[in-house]
Parts: sequence; structure tokens; C-alpha cells
Amino acid sequence: MKTRITELFGIRYPIIQGGMHHVGYAELASAVSNAGGLGMITGLTQPTPEDLAREIARCHQMTDMPFGVNLTFLPSFNAPPYLEYIDAIIQGGVTAVETAGRSPEQYMPQLKAAGIKVIHKCTSVRHSLKAEKIGCDAVSVDGFECGGHPGEDDIPNFILLPRAADELTIPFVASGGMADGRSLVAAMALGAEGMNMGTRFLATKEAPIHDNVKRAIVEADELQTRLIMRNLRNTERVMNNAAVQEIERIEKEKGESETIDDIRHLVTGAKGRLVLQEGRMDEAAWSCGMVAGLIHDVPSCDELIQRIIAETESIVRQRLTRFLDN
Amino acid sequence: MKTRITELFGIRYPIIQGGMHHVGYAELASAVSNAGGLGMITGLTQPTPEDLAREIARCHQMTDMPFGVNLTFLPSFNAPPYLEYIDAIIQGGVTAVETAGRSPEQYMPQLKAAGIKVIHKCTSVRHSLKAEKIGCDAVSVDGFECGGHPGEDDIPNFILLPRAADELTIPFVASGGMADGRSLVAAMALGAEGMNMGTRFLATKEAPIHDNVKRAIVEADELQTRLIMRNLRNTERVMNNAAVQEIERIEKEKGESETIDDIRHLVTGAKGRLVLQEGRMDEAAWSCGMVAGLIHDVPSCDELIQRIIAETESIVRQRLTRFLDN
Repeated sequence: MKTRITELFGIRYPIIQGGMHHVGYAELASAVSNAGGLGMITGLTQPTPEDLAREIARCHQMTDMPFGVNLTFLPSFNAPPYLEYIDAIIQGGVTAVETAGRSPEQYMPQLKAAGIKVIHKCTSVRHSLKAEKIGCDAVSVDGFECGGHPGEDDIPNFILLPRAADELTIPFVASGGMADGRSLVAAMALGAEGMNMGTRFLATKEAPIHDNVKRAIVEADELQTRLIMRNLRNTERVMNNAAVQEIERIEKEKGESETIDDIRHLVTGAKGRLVLQEGRMDEAAWSCGMVAGLIHDVPSCDELIQRIIAETESIVRQRLTRFLDN
Repeated sequence: MKTRITELFGIRYPIIQGGMHHVGYAELASAVSNAGGLGMITGLTQPTPEDLAREIARCHQMTDMPFGVNLTFLPSFNAPPYLEYIDAIIQGGVTAVETAGRSPEQYMPQLKAAGIKVIHKCTSVRHSLKAEKIGCDAVSVDGFECGGHPGEDDIPNFILLPRAADELTIPFVASGGMADGRSLVAAMALGAEGMNMGTRFLATKEAPIHDNVKRAIVEADELQTRLIMRNLRNTERVMNNAAVQEIERIEKEKGESETIDDIRHLVTGAKGRLVLQEGRMDEAAWSCGMVAGLIHDVPSCDELIQRIIAETESIVRQRLTRFLDN
């Protein structure tokens, strides 16, 4: 396939694996890239810039294809040493960076000077336009459906993607709600030039996470996610579990909380590792998209991407063409 | 075009105008049907079954094409005389009925005996399966994006449509978030065989509503809708205005209200007429979908539908095909 996204990143199919904390290790990133997509190492899952440098080197040993690194900019007084992480990315010969969270504006000079292609994750049209303005090469437009942080506007991709298409000049991929060839065709019809998948890649053979997590995704339907931390305007879509029910109880009791301290022991971040790596499914809230309802198996990344592309071909050349021809 | 929906209703294009209170008069229904879609008279906007019979006769004078009648089943102790409305539909030679609200189960024998094709509006997979089970011919699958009543599950169409496709045998159209050819192609890629539009048809020349309403839709972006009556589990998506802000104030003050009495003077229903017909834009809450952000003009129904079909052709045969061919 050929879209502005495949051209930009030098990949075969316009399918990106989104950065996921405690998940985006070299095993998954290399598997996605070897399958023709763009795999993504999660920068801050590596405790230090030196660890990230080692993870990048490990990924290069597992694939000759392009892969990226996710860098999430947190609203933190005790910020990670971002410039050192960026240096590890540049020295590691990585050519793509997915930024998320706060605007990457202050780091754009370093990234662009090194020739790195930057795709920024945005949950609104206004943030997408800002990303374009500061020099991002592409945007990952993230709808209300998504796992993790959907923002506070609650605009699903059926609206957000065509709105982004009407406003943006740079190419964008659809993120949130993406599972299969149907998603990819729909996203491209609405103006995207590819898709980003998170939850779907959790349920793959190569995802280096506990089998309990993969099983939970396969078993869930679309009604099993919950939104937490709305009061803090830091909304996160997570899979329902005992920790989430406890968070909801605390949030209801406290009303409009202005601090995360009450629920810190239950939310993703450091605690998410207990679920994702150790399979202790009720220890903490963990990000999961509504798309879990469309996930019914645990294929390899190559099987998954080949299936998506075959379905994409079939939908465009047969289903849609027939509706028009008859 | 040809899909199971065009075949079922005997229409040229798989585009349905959804029932809208104080809007679905013969003027709009006939304009949509003359343009090749399926227009819809709103049954309960007519005060009596006799009025509905007259409105149907009036519509027959304005079009030779098939059109339908919407019947909304309310959870009311003081229910309208539904059997008499249905009799007016049957005697009027109408061949399509869109049901909404509660299940149409108890009226299916009358409708089916008269050969009427029934499409039921559903906001969930489980309700869609129920509709199929009781003999509905099709379903209108209504996502979280929609104006009016999205239900309480908050599942957008990127998830809901493929989930419906995986479960249903009968055909379905996508409802909520539908505005243009991009929407139609995306909906059909995700498994729908057509689309239902409400808000988009409000902003047409033939919609018999006040120009202030059309102007408000054209001017709104996707961030201007609000959800009211969540506490009552009767959520409605409406355009933000002074009445909605007053409702939000009351809902916040009262906490979890269990009665509609506090806000009855501000919600759609009888009061919606003041906005829709008289253009008094702050008198009451009125239903509007997020899709307002994708509406920028007020074309005729024929211009609108021709544009949608041309865009559909272009997306499938050029944009999507090129992505695959290159």
C-alpha cells in the first residue's frame, strides 16, 4: 500500500503500533516492524536513557525495518531527563518518534535537526493544528473510543477524523477503535492515511505481557471499559476490574477531587506493571480501548497485519465496489 | 447503488432521513424521497391519527417515491393511541415504518400483516438482536455521536457498527455522526448497508423549520453538543444554549434527580417546537448531533444526496483504490 504515512515512515502498510507503558519493548516493536507496520518502543518504560539506548540496540538486532520510540511528555515537576532520552533515540539511529501528552514544542529543534519524523498524538482538532504549526510531520488523531487518555472533549472518530481532514495539511492516522481491515478502510474513507492500534497489539503472540491480560481482552465485550479520573481532567479509559470499582467508589464518595493522591495506589503507571507483567488482574487500573469488543484471538503480528490488509483489499475491491456497480 | 437496504425499501440510495419531532413533515419526507433516499414523517408530531392520515396523503401528493413514518414508543402511562396511528399508516399505503424508543414487539403483528417493512432504532448490540428476533426487517444502529437519545452505553459507531455486523443477520444502517460521502463509505466498510441522517437533514432547504436553527447548525462546531438527563437514564444529546446551561445548573444542584419535573419546562418535546418552528433559540433544549461540526451549508435534499453519492464514488474508486494499487 502507499499513503503519505507509508511514504513518511518508509513502511509497507500504514499501520502503527502506539506506545504503551510496560508493553512497548523490543519484542513487540520488532514484530510489528517485521510485519510491515511501524513498531514503537515506549521510551519512558525504560528507567534511564541508557536503558533506552540498550533497548533500541536490542530492537535493531531483531529487525532491519524502521521502528519508532514513543516519548510521553508528562505534566510533572520531577520530569524525566527528556533531552537525554532524545539523545539516546538520535544516537540509536531511530528515525521516527511518537510524542504524546504535552506538546513536544520545546524538543522539536533537536528532533528535526536529527532528521527524525515526529508524529504527535492528539485528541482534538485544535491540538492537531498546533502540532502541525510547530513542525510535526504527522498526527495520530485519537478518538473517544481509545484506551488510555481520550482527553475531555469526548469526540469519537466518526466526527474527529473528517474534522481533522478538513483542517490539517499534514497526514494523520486514526487512533482509538482500530481493530481490523474494516477499521482501516473506514479511517481512510474519513480522511486518515493509516491507523494506530494499541489494544489490538496487546492481544498478539509477541506482546511481552502476561497471558492473563491477553485473555481478558479476548473475553471482554465493548461494554467493559470505564473512564476514571474525569474529576482530575486527566481522564483515562481502562478495563473494568476490582481496582477500577474501588476508584469509582472513592471518586463518588469524594465528589470533585483535585488530587490524585486518593487513588494513586490503584492507577496505571508504576502499578500497571503488576497487571501487565505479572498478570495480577485486579491490582491496578490498566488502559484498554473499547475495541476489546472486536478482539477475539491472539494472532502473531504478521498474521494480524496480513489479515488486515487482505480484509482491506476485499472491502474496497469487492464489498464497496459492488454496492456502487449494482 | 444497491445494498440490502435499497432493496428492502425500494429506494435508489441507501440514505434514510430519521424521524425528528417537529421536523418530519411531508415537505422534508417528500424531498428526501424525491432525491432517491427514504423520507420519514414523524408520526407523533401529528396530534391525532387523523392528522397523521392527512399528512401521509399530503406527502403522497408531493412524491411518487416510497417514504416512511416514524413511530416512537414512549415509556408513558398516558400513551398515544398507537394502534390508531398504525391504522392510519396502513390505510395510507405507507410501506416503511421506523420504530424508536421502546421495543415495537406488541405492534409487530399488525405491521407485518400489512406488509410494512420495519426498521428499529437501537443504541446497542443487545437491542439490535432483540429487534431481529421479534421480526424487524432492519435496524438503525445509533452510536454515541447521535443527536437525541444515544442510550447509556456510550459506544461510538466505530465500535458499534462492526459489533452489530458480527452479530446480526438482518441488514442495518448507521445512525449518528453521518454527514457526507465519507460517512457513508466508512459506515459501509464497518458493515452497515446504508446510513440514517437526522441533523444533516435539518440543515436543508426543504426542512420545514426556522432559519435560525439551520444557521445554528452551520455555525456550530463538534464541541457544541451536551448530554442532559443522564441522571434520569434518559440521556439526550442537545445543542448547547441557555436552556441547556440552566438544565446543567439544576442537575448539578440537585445531584441525582429521579424526576424530570425540575427541568420539564426546558426540555424538548412540546417545548422543542418553540425552537424548531419559531426560532426562539434559547427557549428549550433541542436535539442535535455532534455532526453539526461537519455541516457548513444548507443545500436542497437533492443537492445533498447527489453530492454524497458523488463523494462516495470518488472515495471508493479513486482514494481507496489508489492507496491499494500503489
